[in-house]
Amino acid sequence: MNEHDPKITKDRFHEMLGDSAPFMDSYDFQILDIGYGTASVAVPYNPGFIRPGGTIAGPVMFAAADFTLWVAVLGAYGEVPLAVTTNMAINFLRKPENETLIADARLFKIGKRLAVGDIWVSNKGVDEPCAHVTGTYSIPPMAK
Amino acid sequence: MNEHDPKITKDRFHEMLGDSAPFMDSYDFQILDIGYGTASVAVPYNPGFIRPGGTIAGPVMFAAADFTLWVAVLGAYGEVPLAVTTNMAINFLRKPENETLIADARLFKIGKRLAVGDIWVSNKGVDEPCAHVTGTYSIPPMAK
Amino acid sequence: MNEHDPKITKDRFHEMLGDSAPFMDSYDFQILDIGYGTASVAVPYNPGFIRPGGTIAGPVMFAAADFTLWVAVLGAYGEVPLAVTTNMAINFLRKPENETLIADARLFKIGKRLAVGDIWVSNKGVDEPCAHVTGTYSIPPMAK
Amino acid sequence: MNEHDPKITKDRFHEMLGDSAPFMDSYDFQILDIGYGTASVAVPYNPGFIRPGGTIAGPVMFAAADFTLWVAVLGAYGEVPLAVTTNMAINFLRKPENETLIADARLFKIGKRLAVGDIWVSNKGVDEPCAHVTGTYSIPPMAK
Repeated sequence: MNEHDPKITKDRFHEMLGDSAPFMDSYDFQILDIGYGTASVAVPYNPGFIRPGGTIAGPVMFAAADFTLWVAVLGAYGEVPLAVTTNMAINFLRKPENETLIADARLFKIGKRLAVGDIWVSNKGVDEPCAHVTGTYSIPPMAK
Repeated sequence: MNEHDPKITKDRFHEMLGDSAPFMDSYDFQILDIGYGTASVAVPYNPGFIRPGGTIAGPVMFAAADFTLWVAVLGAYGEVPLAVTTNMAINFLRKPENETLIADARLFKIGKRLAVGDIWVSNKGVDEPCAHVTGTYSIPPMAK
Repeated sequence: MNEHDPKITKDRFHEMLGDSAPFMDSYDFQILDIGYGTASVAVPYNPGFIRPGGTIAGPVMFAAADFTLWVAVLGAYGEVPLAVTTNMAINFLRKPENETLIADARLFKIGKRLAVGDIWVSNKGVDEPCAHVTGTYSIPPMAK
Repeated sequence: MNEHDPKITKDRFHEMLGDSAPFMDSYDFQILDIGYGTASVAVPYNPGFIRPGGTIAGPVMFAAADFTLWVAVLGAYGEVPLAVTTNMAINFLRKPENETLIADARLFKIGKRLAVGDIWVSNKGVDEPCAHVTGTYSIPPMAK
């Protein structure tokens, strides 16, 4: 579907982010791949992620999904750091293991005003996903 | 609608949580009120919440909403710490100010197997909400 | 919150609709009220609404919610018939009785590009709601 | 992922439905395929589907998605006609052509109490989807 080159590289992404993103920094997100409207991000396990019951808290998976979709948006539109999420819906499917999480995002609409996509969150190397998320980003007028 | 007493007190809630919730602890959530199927929680501003653009990251509002709905669930069902979110949907409405956030949750279904409710996230003392969230919790078989 | 007059009247609404809306006509929606960003609509019971189990099908409640939110959008923006839903999320709370349904919508964001609101669907005269819906409309550039 | 046979056949499905589903009948849904947790359904175009602007109304796509996910649920669990939707979230991606719609559903969680899946709605023979939907079904206690 997306036969384009990504509009941003990993290096340029990190340069752009600089120290403007303490929230993202606190998760130590590792960008594995950026494509045109796709992205893959690893989230190393951190004991600070734990909720009662001893498993990774749901909002950790949400944060990973939100970040990864944002990277996919930049992969499709280029540098629009102020693209903002308008809504996201998350379904929690299975308890994650206390190991690295991987979030894989792809856009299925790359529009003038809105980008829509979904994100799968799974443990690294495990087929069964832990969460499925859909989200919409609002694209600022100047972009594209 | 809910003419019952809350099934858990703030003191008992904190006792139950103990040190089992490092994720929640990292947000320094302040429970303002627990009712039968309702809860109100303050989230003190923290520079670690910032995303590019200089405002509070969306997942911070999500985490506040998720926690507050969970408190409301315990207010309705008593001690079911393993009640788990099955899904949540968040609409981001306005940029929050870099000040304390308040999340207000209320359940509108308190069922045998599922609890459903919504949460408003706003800046303290500000009428216009920053985010609206709906969520569903799955209630373990023994509860209620 | 909304201290404005509605931007469209019931009469003008029906005039505008004319015969351009066979889908809406098939439901026999009765507009009870239009305000600035609010609307109330009655859906008379119809045996054609029934799903297995003998109750009103979920998509009937969805259709009522979608229509009512659209009326609320026109109440806030005036004649923007081409405003389109970008997403909706529905939680089914209780089985409706096979009687008239009422849908009550209100917008909680009336923005330049997006309108966001929710809708309660209940049986007429019954407090407990059958469904809660949130939705977003994309507003065409010329509007407002 | 799903290496099982479907738990219901098309013939048995229609037999079970009988005349208990006037709402579904009104759409003339054509089941193309039932698998274990998957289903594909065609919706023949009908001028009664039109909304202002001359295109197929969003709730038509919702109804198709809801029905198709239900068929997929029966494909995974067998005859649980009273399985009920607890929530659905729909993203509208592109205007459909006034032609046959196809809805393709697959479950990504087939649990004891909840089934979760998504549905793509597209025009027949067209790659770009018109809507993406996620939904959850509550499974009655006796099933499975």
